[in-house]
Amino acid sequence: MSLVSSVVDQPVSPSVRVFVTGGTFDKKYNELTGTLAFEDTHLPEMLRLGRCRLEVSIRTLMMIDSLDMTDADRALIAEQCRTAVEPRIVITHGTDTMVETGQVLARTFPRGGDKTIVLTGAMIPYAFGSSDGLFNLGSALSFVQVLPPGVYIAMNGKYFPSGRVRKNRETGVFEEF
Amino acid sequence: MSLVSSVVDQPVSPSVRVFVTGGTFDKKYNELTGTLAFEDTHLPEMLRLGRCRLEVSIRTLMMIDSLDMTDADRALIAEQCRTAVEPRIVITHGTDTMVETGQVLARTFPRGGDKTIVLTGAMIPYAFGSSDGLFNLGSALSFVQVLPPGVYIAMNGKYFPSGRVRKNRETGVFEEF
Amino acid sequence: MSLVSSVVDQPVSPSVRVFVTGGTFDKKYNELTGTLAFEDTHLPEMLRLGRCRLEVSIRTLMMIDSLDMTDADRALIAEQCRTAVEPRIVITHGTDTMVETGQVLARTFPRGGDKTIVLTGAMIPYAFGSSDGLFNLGSALSFVQVLPPGVYIAMNGKYFPSGRVRKNRETGVFEEF
Amino acid sequence: MSLVSSVVDQPVSPSVRVFVTGGTFDKKYNELTGTLAFEDTHLPEMLRLGRCRLEVSIRTLMMIDSLDMTDADRALIAEQCRTAVEPRIVITHGTDTMVETGQVLARTFPRGGDKTIVLTGAMIPYAFGSSDGLFNLGSALSFVQVLPPGVYIAMNGKYFPSGRVRKNRETGVFEEF
Repeated sequence: MSLVSSVVDQPVSPSVRVFVTGGTFDKKYNELTGTLAFEDTHLPEMLRLGRCRLEVSIRTLMMIDSLDMTDADRALIAEQCRTAVEPRIVITHGTDTMVETGQVLARTFPRGGDKTIVLTGAMIPYAFGSSDGLFNLGSALSFVQVLPPGVYIAMNGKYFPSGRVRKNRETGVFEEF
Repeated sequence: MSLVSSVVDQPVSPSVRVFVTGGTFDKKYNELTGTLAFEDTHLPEMLRLGRCRLEVSIRTLMMIDSLDMTDADRALIAEQCRTAVEPRIVITHGTDTMVETGQVLARTFPRGGDKTIVLTGAMIPYAFGSSDGLFNLGSALSFVQVLPPGVYIAMNGKYFPSGRVRKNRETGVFEEF
Repeated sequence: MSLVSSVVDQPVSPSVRVFVTGGTFDKKYNELTGTLAFEDTHLPEMLRLGRCRLEVSIRTLMMIDSLDMTDADRALIAEQCRTAVEPRIVITHGTDTMVETGQVLARTFPRGGDKTIVLTGAMIPYAFGSSDGLFNLGSALSFVQVLPPGVYIAMNGKYFPSGRVRKNRETGVFEEF
Repeated sequence: MSLVSSVVDQPVSPSVRVFVTGGTFDKKYNELTGTLAFEDTHLPEMLRLGRCRLEVSIRTLMMIDSLDMTDADRALIAEQCRTAVEPRIVITHGTDTMVETGQVLARTFPRGGDKTIVLTGAMIPYAFGSSDGLFNLGSALSFVQVLPPGVYIAMNGKYFPSGRVRKNRETGVFEEF
């Protein structure tokens, strides 16, 4: 069975699982301390703003800066992906170590697995007026519906198979190699 | 050759043609007259905000409310799609008659054509703080990279093959049938 | 007793009455009809955003485009100002006929009255990202606390005694004469 | 001559000097480092957004967090106020030590001086969508036009004579005492 025919015959939108891990996406300005911090995720508000009608179930796994993410955190994310009933999963994640988490997931779900997993994030917090978050979320939720099983990163309007992408730290842009 | 393998072997992002036709996407508030009006498209600004790194070439075909779109306008859009060198095309369009334009395009490019065409729009003008436009644009630019040739509508985080979608005028939501 | 000394001795912020009449301030985009319309006032949300700690009581008198305002509407506004217990009143109003309403109020409260009334408005609806409304509201609520009794228009960071101001319809700017 | 008559006879808006010192007002999100930082001031953009038609001349004295402000910095601010030709001055300032700077200025310009100086700031950076900055700026620019000579803090829609205000660090609110 080719993907083409399945796409054309079954356009009904699948339900998507979203795992929230924190990252710039969800950073907020704490006006009492004058610092950036995490509170609740902005995902539900973003989906409302995007008038998203996909069946999406959101679960917050952690709410951390991805520079603070440990091996145990990544093991938890992988385990949650493994046990999720939905075959289509979006993970919001800090951009600094998104590539590393993608590699862990790719090892957990080698090609031939049955899950399409898309990691995405933002360069600017959603709570700021000029965030790329809404664009990236729309992008990730779309790629995850159509891409074949595998682990991907969706940033800057593009998607990259895990293992073939790095973040250019000088420009903040994700690049294929 | 299956789509799966082509996707995995050629993740390099394709260049995408964007045709702008107006619609809510690009409505602006004219502060002297107190009415909504069209000026230049917001697409370049939106792509900048989304930090989009796709190779996108934008061309404004018209800047009108889709309720005012004529058969001649739709013929022009179809002709522009036909002659575009890019096989992947996004059309920003008013939501009121997006379905009709999709049907015209589907007749022009029956299944088996070589173009993937995705129409998208917004319920709230981008110039307003609370627009769904950035979400929809991220979504449309993603679907167009991965969906097989055909004509689609991307709204509300979903995609619909043209001919199997209508806009529910009471809720403003696009629905499959 | 001069105003100077009263200001210095009694800095305690007075309570302010706000009368809402509609105008661009409160226009919203109706996403089902694609037109601008009035719903509830945005004043409470704007005061929250401005972290305003003044004692403000808001009353919506009408919710109309000021081009549709009748003599009866203006008589109602004047009567409400007359009976308000607060000596300091801000009126949000469409800019097109703000000057006319100011003149009606100035006739109702000739110099020597005991009320400070400040009319203000916006060129861009607050619900849009780029509104001047929050700036004007902060301005009007400040002028009303300090200006001596009289009727004023506060727009563009300035205040004008009623009767010495007109709106330049070509530039949208309020000018003294 | 009373202020009342001067206000009524000379409503022509005075020119205002704005001194920028940094503070939350002007904090930006640096997307490469993921931290808050200062770049250029947002004041000109804010005045444009507010469609401010006052004659305002802006000068950036420093661009720092007010927790880092030294005695030398405050001496510089006081000196700049002293030599400014405009009798009406607004200072944008971090909220954490705004009260302290106000006290230094009050000592420099004891009552009877000829300058009206208003310090203001923001709890949320202007670059974020939900800032109180525009409200506070409109407020400060209005108070400074009408208040008699002296040093004031304008926050939360109120004004406070310097020396009678403190910032409540638990609530972030400026309070009179």
